[in-house]
Amino acid sequence: MRAAIYRGPGEITVEEVPRPELESSTDAVVRVTHTAVCGSDLWFYRGDSDREVGSRVGHEPMGVVEAVGADVRSVAPGDRVFAPFLVSCGACEFCRKGLHTSCVNGDSWGGDNGGGQGEYVRTPHADGTLVRVPDRHADDEDTLRSLLALTDVMGTGHHAAVSAGVEAGSTCVVVGDGAVGLCGVLAARRLGAERIVALGHHEDRLDLAAEFGATETIHAHGEEAIERARETTHGGPNHVLECVGAAASMNAAIDICRDGGTVGYVGVPHGVEDGGLDLFGLFGGNVALRGGVAPVRAYAEELMADVLAGTLDPSPIFTQTVDLDGVPEGYRAMDEREAIKVLVKPHGNE
Amino acid sequence: MRAAIYRGPGEITVEEVPRPELESSTDAVVRVTHTAVCGSDLWFYRGDSDREVGSRVGHEPMGVVEAVGADVRSVAPGDRVFAPFLVSCGACEFCRKGLHTSCVNGDSWGGDNGGGQGEYVRTPHADGTLVRVPDRHADDEDTLRSLLALTDVMGTGHHAAVSAGVEAGSTCVVVGDGAVGLCGVLAARRLGAERIVALGHHEDRLDLAAEFGATETIHAHGEEAIERARETTHGGPNHVLECVGAAASMNAAIDICRDGGTVGYVGVPHGVEDGGLDLFGLFGGNVALRGGVAPVRAYAEELMADVLAGTLDPSPIFTQTVDLDGVPEGYRAMDEREAIKVLVKPHGNE
Repeated sequence: MRAAIYRGPGEITVEEVPRPELESSTDAVVRVTHTAVCGSDLWFYRGDSDREVGSRVGHEPMGVVEAVGADVRSVAPGDRVFAPFLVSCGACEFCRKGLHTSCVNGDSWGGDNGGGQGEYVRTPHADGTLVRVPDRHADDEDTLRSLLALTDVMGTGHHAAVSAGVEAGSTCVVVGDGAVGLCGVLAARRLGAERIVALGHHEDRLDLAAEFGATETIHAHGEEAIERARETTHGGPNHVLECVGAAASMNAAIDICRDGGTVGYVGVPHGVEDGGLDLFGLFGGNVALRGGVAPVRAYAEELMADVLAGTLDPSPIFTQTVDLDGVPEGYRAMDEREAIKVLVKPHGNE
Repeated sequence: MRAAIYRGPGEITVEEVPRPELESSTDAVVRVTHTAVCGSDLWFYRGDSDREVGSRVGHEPMGVVEAVGADVRSVAPGDRVFAPFLVSCGACEFCRKGLHTSCVNGDSWGGDNGGGQGEYVRTPHADGTLVRVPDRHADDEDTLRSLLALTDVMGTGHHAAVSAGVEAGSTCVVVGDGAVGLCGVLAARRLGAERIVALGHHEDRLDLAAEFGATETIHAHGEEAIERARETTHGGPNHVLECVGAAASMNAAIDICRDGGTVGYVGVPHGVEDGGLDLFGLFGGNVALRGGVAPVRAYAEELMADVLAGTLDPSPIFTQTVDLDGVPEGYRAMDEREAIKVLVKPHGNE
């Protein structure tokens, strides 16, 4: 089969690789119909984080089940399914409490499982990992485009909102206008936030934030952005969604947050390890820092219910669609911020 | 009057200084009968943090009201009172929600207000800051020694427990066997924790932790301490009280905490700003970091009620008592860990 391969910073190729097969009785093999390029893929693409050269990439698979092991009970060949960016068993202590990212049997995409950006993936722990799309919606392209966001960014934005303690009536600030930040706006609106202030650097993305439910947008950098966010929230909100992960945005989130409030953070930290986190800002103001890698599997059912009901639609974040050969171009477009998020159809529009 | 003065690292002197007087109608002047040396005083004493040479020191005053301004309503001359380590108005948004440390009219001890370690202090915002000891307990020395801990360390240990989410039935680990850690043990027991594992470096202090309610104590350093704490809690507790503030202890607390759990931290961060905080440990395990500078004024009434009822007694942390001339010796004893916490009676035993 063909799959996208990381060949070093700035270089993604599409190559012939062995097709993954069932190895365990709890595996499923999924033919990937839809997947995406993630903002976090850009860290290795830019050389900001390490990744093994020659490894398969992608971690947001949606597709049709091709084969299942003898012990798989929740899905069968022909089912439309999607999977979060991490594999989880669904049965351990952590999965049972909704922290699937800490699954004791957890696994990741790439390697022999195949990355999401390829024609097929093997899904270990298929019962715990795969989410089945009800048959009546299984072939509706618009629905599938919305559900695809639940493999990562929509669940991640939701985790930021939940971690920040957003609830009905809340005033919140969303730091970051990437796909996760935009999904954070959707999530905050869905949770009943009264005021949602979106902060970003791109006019077009902030326009989308407004469409998604942001009651105000702030297009500014650095101190100006912080001051405007604090001013419009009368001294800072009690809930800040940090949806970037860079040191500057983490510290902006801490600065913006009202004393006693909570920063919900979900962006993979980068650059923060170099002494950049404003711990005194947290300490002095009793600002709580909650969140982390988002257990999107835990949120899949409730978010899917809203997508299927037509009340949640994150699909506008996919501003570009490519086939497998277009994956390298997809990385480039995201890296240069031409696309918010790129949808990939490994088998084309068949 | 006489007061303790900071003269540079390792040097505390007792000098004649102007006696503070009423300056505002909301001030009170308090004759300090009891106060203490704080673990956080050791940071400047050791030269680890900056402090103006010549400044008055101490921030845990208890005493008898000498004079009040015309607008003071809650205390009168002759009342026994104590005050937290920060001044707060009691009326602003933050005081009303129990975050007195973020009081918009807040002030600190030292400077013209006088430090706690002197014969008199001026208390700005006396109504908001001072806690009145009921008359029937106002001259009972044992009670006063217990209540003195409520000016800082007992409220701080309680804040660690509350921030860590300790409640009835909880299993928790307390990192640090200083006065705050020991008070954290008391607080966790008071909140109904079922298992309290105290972690420290000093056998005698851990013995006191056991007296205070620790169900287990671990006398170990570094990785060994972390491993033993995780093992005895079957993989880490959901609640960790970080009661030191150093990078090593912060990161130990993060390491020990079970995925999805909460670290309640209250130690003034030191050494952590140099890139030391294990943000990836927090992120990967969705460990929340809550707490900060403790709003001990918010907790004074409920803790005092228990002290007066005889069910809470932090006074054993005061292992040494000195008069004002003994303050330099008190710093030395705490610096060399001969004393857990030194009680100071500026006017002696009169």
